[in-house]
Amino acid sequence: MEPFSFQVEARAGRARVGRLFTPHGAVETPLFMPVGTAGSVKGLMPKDLEAIGSQVLLANTYHLLLRPGPERVRALGGLHGFAGWKGPWLTDSGGFQVMSLGHMRRIDEEGVVFQSHLDGRLIKLTPERSIAVQEALGADLIMAFDECPPYPSPREYLEASLERTLRWLERSLKAKTRPDQALFGIAQGGTDPELRRRSTLETIRFDLPGYAIGGLAVGEPKEAMFAMVELSTRLLPEDRPRYLMGVGHPEDLVAAMGLGVDLFDCVYPTRTGRFGSALVPEGRLNLKNARFLEDRRPLEEGCDCYTCQTFSRAYLAHLVRAGEMLGGILLSLHNLRHLHRLTEAARQAIREGRYGDFAREFAGRRFGREV
Amino acid sequence: MEPFSFQVEARAGRARVGRLFTPHGAVETPLFMPVGTAGSVKGLMPKDLEAIGSQVLLANTYHLLLRPGPERVRALGGLHGFAGWKGPWLTDSGGFQVMSLGHMRRIDEEGVVFQSHLDGRLIKLTPERSIAVQEALGADLIMAFDECPPYPSPREYLEASLERTLRWLERSLKAKTRPDQALFGIAQGGTDPELRRRSTLETIRFDLPGYAIGGLAVGEPKEAMFAMVELSTRLLPEDRPRYLMGVGHPEDLVAAMGLGVDLFDCVYPTRTGRFGSALVPEGRLNLKNARFLEDRRPLEEGCDCYTCQTFSRAYLAHLVRAGEMLGGILLSLHNLRHLHRLTEAARQAIREGRYGDFAREFAGRRFGREV
Ligand SMILES: [Zn+2]
Ligand SMILES: [Zn+2]
Repeated sequence: MEPFSFQVEARAGRARVGRLFTPHGAVETPLFMPVGTAGSVKGLMPKDLEAIGSQVLLANTYHLLLRPGPERVRALGGLHGFAGWKGPWLTDSGGFQVMSLGHMRRIDEEGVVFQSHLDGRLIKLTPERSIAVQEALGADLIMAFDECPPYPSPREYLEASLERTLRWLERSLKAKTRPDQALFGIAQGGTDPELRRRSTLETIRFDLPGYAIGGLAVGEPKEAMFAMVELSTRLLPEDRPRYLMGVGHPEDLVAAMGLGVDLFDCVYPTRTGRFGSALVPEGRLNLKNARFLEDRRPLEEGCDCYTCQTFSRAYLAHLVRAGEMLGGILLSLHNLRHLHRLTEAARQAIREGRYGDFAREFAGRRFGREV
Repeated sequence: MEPFSFQVEARAGRARVGRLFTPHGAVETPLFMPVGTAGSVKGLMPKDLEAIGSQVLLANTYHLLLRPGPERVRALGGLHGFAGWKGPWLTDSGGFQVMSLGHMRRIDEEGVVFQSHLDGRLIKLTPERSIAVQEALGADLIMAFDECPPYPSPREYLEASLERTLRWLERSLKAKTRPDQALFGIAQGGTDPELRRRSTLETIRFDLPGYAIGGLAVGEPKEAMFAMVELSTRLLPEDRPRYLMGVGHPEDLVAAMGLGVDLFDCVYPTRTGRFGSALVPEGRLNLKNARFLEDRRPLEEGCDCYTCQTFSRAYLAHLVRAGEMLGGILLSLHNLRHLHRLTEAARQAIREGRYGDFAREFAGRRFGREV
């Protein structure tokens, strides 16, 4: 059997339920992937992630390249052996974070030279190097090296960049040696429909096991983002998973799942949790608000996570105010479970052919309510 | 049946195994109590504490008095309802922390006036107020309001202070109304044998359900501390639990258990864990040391905790270096389990009448090894 395959099991409109097979287990889509930047989802143990239904973890090539270094991770068994999460991993290419976190010094046809934010070293990242690093890290799903231009960028830049990203995709594929990793291509094109279309069509010509919709969620208006998602999922092949990078707000997941997106990742649920906020069907609760200090209810009625089953809003609000690290941990756990429950409910609705109702009910719970 | 009782079940020399019955369950002694300062053991979920064999949690009256306030905790069901730990709790009297953390303004016969480290408010704490706060918090085991003089203190001060602490004990007992809480008295006397003896003898005249050995582990030499423990456990009644406050180094536990101490608490295992150190039979591992970056072994061979069962020293060293909060969490979990395993092994050795061998083996593992 192939180490990777993807089957669409049910459809409702353009939304679909899929099953993605990897060497470390099969997972159901649509799914949200928690971000474990440096090889750990901040504050959460792998067993707790497993308990809340996490299926795939994402790690950042940029961070692991700098520390502890890819050869060390390889020697320790790759991410699966190193970091305690035995299910599938996904690594990004490093490109996005070089450009957002690193001090990028030069970008040219060869690749990118950047200065480490840790020790100031100059480091070169090319498609070949990105793939070599991702092979050392050993994730199941790896990403082609791409450039994600800032928003807004001039059309000429977007065009030149997407062409280069296509050449980098070709080099990424040539550099790849491990048969047990699936390489996804990333379509770019900013919010320009014609460029987005061209990038997507050129990318799918490579006939890859999966495709990412890149270059979005970087500050553009939401309507522009969804116009690009809409266009992309019409062009992407039905029988391959589609990954919308960096998107993790519940309302965005519901809209994008409706357009046929299968995979998501974002630091949002854990970051907002560490900052004291909880995701609930009505929006977001800021636990710093004094009204929660005597609120005996769980964060979210009906949530089956450990946080909601064990603690009141009042206790969590106390932890947040007292700066107790357990507050951010318990909120992160709930927030991830909230997104997992959202995709689980979406899968159920799709299987039952009522995704439209699901999306309307989701919106109805938010409408006219305090967020 | 009485809500509280204590039975000595086995003895080996002066060491003993006991069973302490409380309204929230029976626990075995000797035991180490993790410190949940503001109602949470930093970074650890109650379910994980339960899994590693924690039996009693300690919370600090000083912190909870300032935030969220005793009436709020009472309204939310006391510590048992508020903080997710359903087993027994112990609260201290607040006195020690007023004197170490608060800006103490005045101490006199009535009590203590201090300035909150949070908002500068002036707050008065008296024996009556301490007991009222501890009744609102609702712990199973509560402590009489005492003064813990700094080390060193003039003999005259120690003497006047221990006499006042005895009067405060009497007032604490008069103020107590809840029958479902056991009040422990605290013997003082610094490191002066005569004063320590007097304080202990006067304290046990109150015929209390348990006694604390206070005023130690505040900077005095170890030999002076153990001389006082030695003297104290000879004077304290055999049929009541003995609690050595603020002591949590493994070697101190082994020595004190040998002298007949039953209960311990200390922030040491969690604090040193957050600072990147792990307790092991040979001493302490500083995970910041580069030699751990490729060390595939668990923190402690044979440890059954989640950390040791799941992660290598290399991964933990990576987390510590990367400043990932999971590092401190996993080290705290192991360190607490290390102390729980130590007391479990001590209980087993006492039941088998070989505590002396146990203590010698413990010392042998440390002797001549790098710490
Ligand atoms: Zn929840
Ligand atoms: Zn361990």
